Amino acid sequence: MPHLGPTSPPFPSLLTDPDHLCSPCSADIGLIGLAVMGQNLILNMADKGYTVCAYNRTVSKVDHFLDNEAKAGKSIVGAHSIEEFCKKLKRPRKIILLVKAGSAVDNFIEQLEPFLEKGDIVIDGGNSHFPDSNRRTKELEAKGLLFVGSGVSGGEEGARYGPSLMPGGSSAAWPHIKEIFQKTAAQTDGQPCCDWVGEEGAGHYVKMVHNGIEYGDMQLITEAYDILKRGFGMNEKEIAAVFETWNKGVLDSFLIEITTEILKYNDDDGVPLVTKILDAASQKGTGKWTATNALDLGMPVTLIGEAVFARCLSSIKDERVRASKVIGGPQIEPFTGDKKQFIDDLEQALYASKIISYAQGFMLMREAAKEYGWHLNNAGIALMWRGGCIIRSVFLGDITSAFQKKPDLENLLFDDFFNKAIHKAQPGWRRIVAQGALWGIPTPAFSTALSFFDGYRTERLPASLLQAQRDLFGAHQYLVLPEFCGDKYQEGVPVHTNWTGRGGNVSASNYNV
Amino acid sequence: MPHLGPTSPPFPSLLTDPDHLCSPCSADIGLIGLAVMGQNLILNMADKGYTVCAYNRTVSKVDHFLDNEAKAGKSIVGAHSIEEFCKKLKRPRKIILLVKAGSAVDNFIEQLEPFLEKGDIVIDGGNSHFPDSNRRTKELEAKGLLFVGSGVSGGEEGARYGPSLMPGGSSAAWPHIKEIFQKTAAQTDGQPCCDWVGEEGAGHYVKMVHNGIEYGDMQLITEAYDILKRGFGMNEKEIAAVFETWNKGVLDSFLIEITTEILKYNDDDGVPLVTKILDAASQKGTGKWTATNALDLGMPVTLIGEAVFARCLSSIKDERVRASKVIGGPQIEPFTGDKKQFIDDLEQALYASKIISYAQGFMLMREAAKEYGWHLNNAGIALMWRGGCIIRSVFLGDITSAFQKKPDLENLLFDDFFNKAIHKAQPGWRRIVAQGALWGIPTPAFSTALSFFDGYRTERLPASLLQAQRDLFGAHQYLVLPEFCGDKYQEGVPVHTNWTGRGGNVSASNYNV
Repeated sequence: MPHLGPTSPPFPSLLTDPDHLCSPCSADIGLIGLAVMGQNLILNMADKGYTVCAYNRTVSKVDHFLDNEAKAGKSIVGAHSIEEFCKKLKRPRKIILLVKAGSAVDNFIEQLEPFLEKGDIVIDGGNSHFPDSNRRTKELEAKGLLFVGSGVSGGEEGARYGPSLMPGGSSAAWPHIKEIFQKTAAQTDGQPCCDWVGEEGAGHYVKMVHNGIEYGDMQLITEAYDILKRGFGMNEKEIAAVFETWNKGVLDSFLIEITTEILKYNDDDGVPLVTKILDAASQKGTGKWTATNALDLGMPVTLIGEAVFARCLSSIKDERVRASKVIGGPQIEPFTGDKKQFIDDLEQALYASKIISYAQGFMLMREAAKEYGWHLNNAGIALMWRGGCIIRSVFLGDITSAFQKKPDLENLLFDDFFNKAIHKAQPGWRRIVAQGALWGIPTPAFSTALSFFDGYRTERLPASLLQAQRDLFGAHQYLVLPEFCGDKYQEGVPVHTNWTGRGGNVSASNYNV
Repeated sequence: MPHLGPTSPPFPSLLTDPDHLCSPCSADIGLIGLAVMGQNLILNMADKGYTVCAYNRTVSKVDHFLDNEAKAGKSIVGAHSIEEFCKKLKRPRKIILLVKAGSAVDNFIEQLEPFLEKGDIVIDGGNSHFPDSNRRTKELEAKGLLFVGSGVSGGEEGARYGPSLMPGGSSAAWPHIKEIFQKTAAQTDGQPCCDWVGEEGAGHYVKMVHNGIEYGDMQLITEAYDILKRGFGMNEKEIAAVFETWNKGVLDSFLIEITTEILKYNDDDGVPLVTKILDAASQKGTGKWTATNALDLGMPVTLIGEAVFARCLSSIKDERVRASKVIGGPQIEPFTGDKKQFIDDLEQALYASKIISYAQGFMLMREAAKEYGWHLNNAGIALMWRGGCIIRSVFLGDITSAFQKKPDLENLLFDDFFNKAIHKAQPGWRRIVAQGALWGIPTPAFSTALSFFDGYRTERLPASLLQAQRDLFGAHQYLVLPEFCGDKYQEGVPVHTNWTGRGGNVSASNYNV
C-alpha cells in the first residue's frame, strides 16, 4: 500500500511534537465525529497510507481513541480544538464531518469557517437530507469554500474495510478528494465503489435511495424468513441452510450472507439469538425520506413504501399483542406439496420482488435528475452500490451491465437480462403471494411488487373509472383515449360529462391530470 | 325551510339599492371564489334562507353568476371590490374563502384585513394543508380576528345540496357560524354532518384524512371493476348490476352508487363511456399529504399509500404501453368455479379492505391528536362523514356507533361489529387476493389491506431478524423480548452482539427503536 501522506516531516519541530509526532499542516484529511463510523473510517484511511486528524466535540473521546483503537503506530493524529484541528490540515483542507444529521452539521460548519481558507473542502459524510446538502453547497460556494455531501454506506465493517462512497456537491472539490475517496472505498471487480455522483445534494440523494432500497431488501428477507418459519414450520438452523444455498445463486449478497450468520448464531443456552429479539424496528430515517420523496415526485416506489410501513407496524408491538388475542386467522395446515419446488418459488419471489424494487428506485432517480436538474450516471450508481455498501450484491453487477450496455435504459424491466429473469420468476412469485394470503402470513413487499409488476405491464388500467368518478362528483373532467378521438372528442382536450342529469354545467376551472 | 336572513330590510335604502336590493351590512355571510364549489355553496346557503354576498377576483364572474345561476329571486348579492364586499356583511363578518389552496388564501386574507374588525371571522373552505391552517389560526388570532379552516366535501352536488363540513380553528368562532354551517351541511339520520372538529388546523387535517380515505375507497372499487372485467370477462352492464346489488348491502355508499351510474352510462354510439376514458389519474393532492403525514407520524396507513401510488403508476401511461409490449403475464383461463361465490368473495374483499382503510385512518388521527395536542372526537368525525361527503355510506353509521359505544376504542378491529365482520370476510378476501396474484390482475389495495391485517394480528413479526441485521452491520443494538429478560438481559436495555467475530466493540451511541 503506497504511503501517500508526507514521508518526511516538513518541519523539524515535527519530531518533538508531543501530539503523535504531528506538526501543523501535515494531515491529509481531517475527520470530526468519533462514533463507530467515524473511528472506523479514520482507521481505514490510515491503513491506506493517509495521515488523518481526528476531532470530536467531547474531546476526551479523541484521547481515548488515540490511546486505544488508533494506537499501534498508525498515521492518526488528534486535535483538542477546532482551531488546532484546522491548523493540522494540509491545504486545501479536506474535512469530513461524521456527525448527527441536522443542526450539528451546520454548527460544525459555523465553528470551522473562521479557520478555513478559500478552496477548502467541507465534506458531510452523515446521513443528511439532500435538500440540506443543496443548501449547504450554495452557502459554502458563496463564501469561496467547497462543499461535498457524501453518502457513506457499509456500516461499521464497511467504514473499516472499504465502504461505498457517494460524493456529490461542488464539482471543483472532486479532483482534490478523488484519490483518497477511491482508495478508501471498497474495490469490486477491480473498480472502486466510489465515483462523482452529481450536483448539489445528489450524493446524499443517491445515498437516500440506497437506504430506501436497503429497507426494501431487508423487508423482503424477513418475509421469506416468516414464510419458511411459520408457513413451513422450519427452525432457524434449517432456514439458515436455505439462505446459505440462496447466497450461491442470483441472490448472492451481503444481506443474505449476514442473514445466514444471524440465523446460525445461538445464544449461550443454544437458543437462536434472533428468536429472543424484540420484533419492533425503527423507521424514522432515510427510508421514510425516500418514500416521501417518491410521493412528492409522483413515482410509484411502492416496495420501499411498504417496507417503511412494515417497520411502523412492527413498532406498535403492544397494540399487536392485544390484537393477536382477539383477531384470529386461518389455521396453517402442514404443507403437502413439493417442498423443494416451494422453496425455489420463494427464491424466485424474493428475486423478482428485488428486481421490482431496484427498477422503482432507478425510476425515482430518473425523475429526480429531471426535477432537480442533476446529471446522474445510472451505471456509475450501480457500480458504487456493487460493493462496500449494505446492499452490495452480484445482482448490482447485473444492473451495472444493463446500464453500461444502454445508458438511457428506460427501465430495468426493458433490459434483456432482467426481462428474462422476471419472466422466469413469475409463476413461483405468484404462487408465493397467493399462498401467503391463504396462510395468513403477511407479505406486504412481495405483494406490492407483484401488483406493481402487473400494473406496469398493463396497457389499460381501471383508472378510467376513477377519472369518471372524479368527473361525476367534482366536475374534474377527463381525457379521452386517442383511439376514440375524432369528431366528438379531441386528443388532450378535457371533457366533462353530466353523468347523472342532476349536476350543473359548471366544470372545475383547472383540469389537472 | 325557515328564512333565517333578515325578513324585512333594515334600511329603507335597501329597496332602492340597484345591486340586487342589498344595503350595507345586510348579508349574513360572504363567499369569495366563484368556481363550481363556491357557486354551489352560495346557492345552498341562500336556499337555507341566508343572504350571501359573492365576490370573485375576476369581477365579471360575479355579474355573470348574479345574472344566471343566482338570478331567480335568491337572497344573493354581489360585490365588485373587497371593500364593498366587507361593507355588505353583518358583524361579526363571516367570510368563506373558496380559492386555490396556498398563496391565494394568504393574499385574500391580506386584502381583507384593512376592512375587517375585531372578532370578524375568516373561514378557509379550500383544500388547504393543515400546517397552513395552524399558522393562519395563530396569525389571525394575534390580530384580534378569528380563523376557521373548514374541510368541505361532497363535490359539486354536495356543495349545492348539503356538503359535509369539518370546521376547526379559533373555537370562539364556532357559536357564530354553528347555525349556518349545520343548516347548510347535509343532514343524515336527523343530524347535521357538521360539528366542531378541534384546534388550529384540525378541520383541514380531518378533511385531508377524509380525502386520503376517498382515494382508498376509489382504488378499491377500481380493483373490483378490473377483476370483474378482465378476470371474469364481464361487460360494463353486467358489472353495473353487481355494483347495484352491492349498494343494497354492507357496501351501500355514494361511491358504489355513482360507480353503477357510470358503468351504465353509454356514449351516443352505445359504447360505455368509461371505456373511452384515458386511464391516467392525478395524485398531487390531499391523498399524497395523508400518506406523507402517515410516514411522518410513523403510522402504517398502507392502503392510502398504495392508492396514491396506484394513481402515480396510472399516470405514466406511455411507459406502461411500452412495457405492455415486452412484458407478458399469465393467460387468464375462463373461470370454472362458483361464480356467485366468487362475486360474494369480491364483495367481502372490498368490505374487509375498507374496514382496514378506515381503521388505519382512525389510527392516524389518534396519533395526530397526540402529536399536535388536539382533541378530536372520533364519533363526531364519523358522523360528519356519514353524509354529504364523497365517502358517505351506511358503513360510516356503523363506525359512528362503534365510537359512540366506546369513545376511547383503540382500533375499529376491536369493536364487536367490525371484528365479526372482518372474521366473516376473511376467507373470501384471501381467495380474491390469491386469485388476483395468479391471474396477474393488480390488487395493490386489497393486498396491502390483507398484509396489514395479517401483520396487525401477529404477536411476533419477523422484524426481530431485521433488528439483528441492523445490529450486525451498523451496531444499532436491539432490545430483548421480555420473556427472555432476567440475569443476562434487562428489559429495555439495548444489547449489541458481535455476530461475526469480526466487528469491533464500539456500538452506535444512540439506540433508536
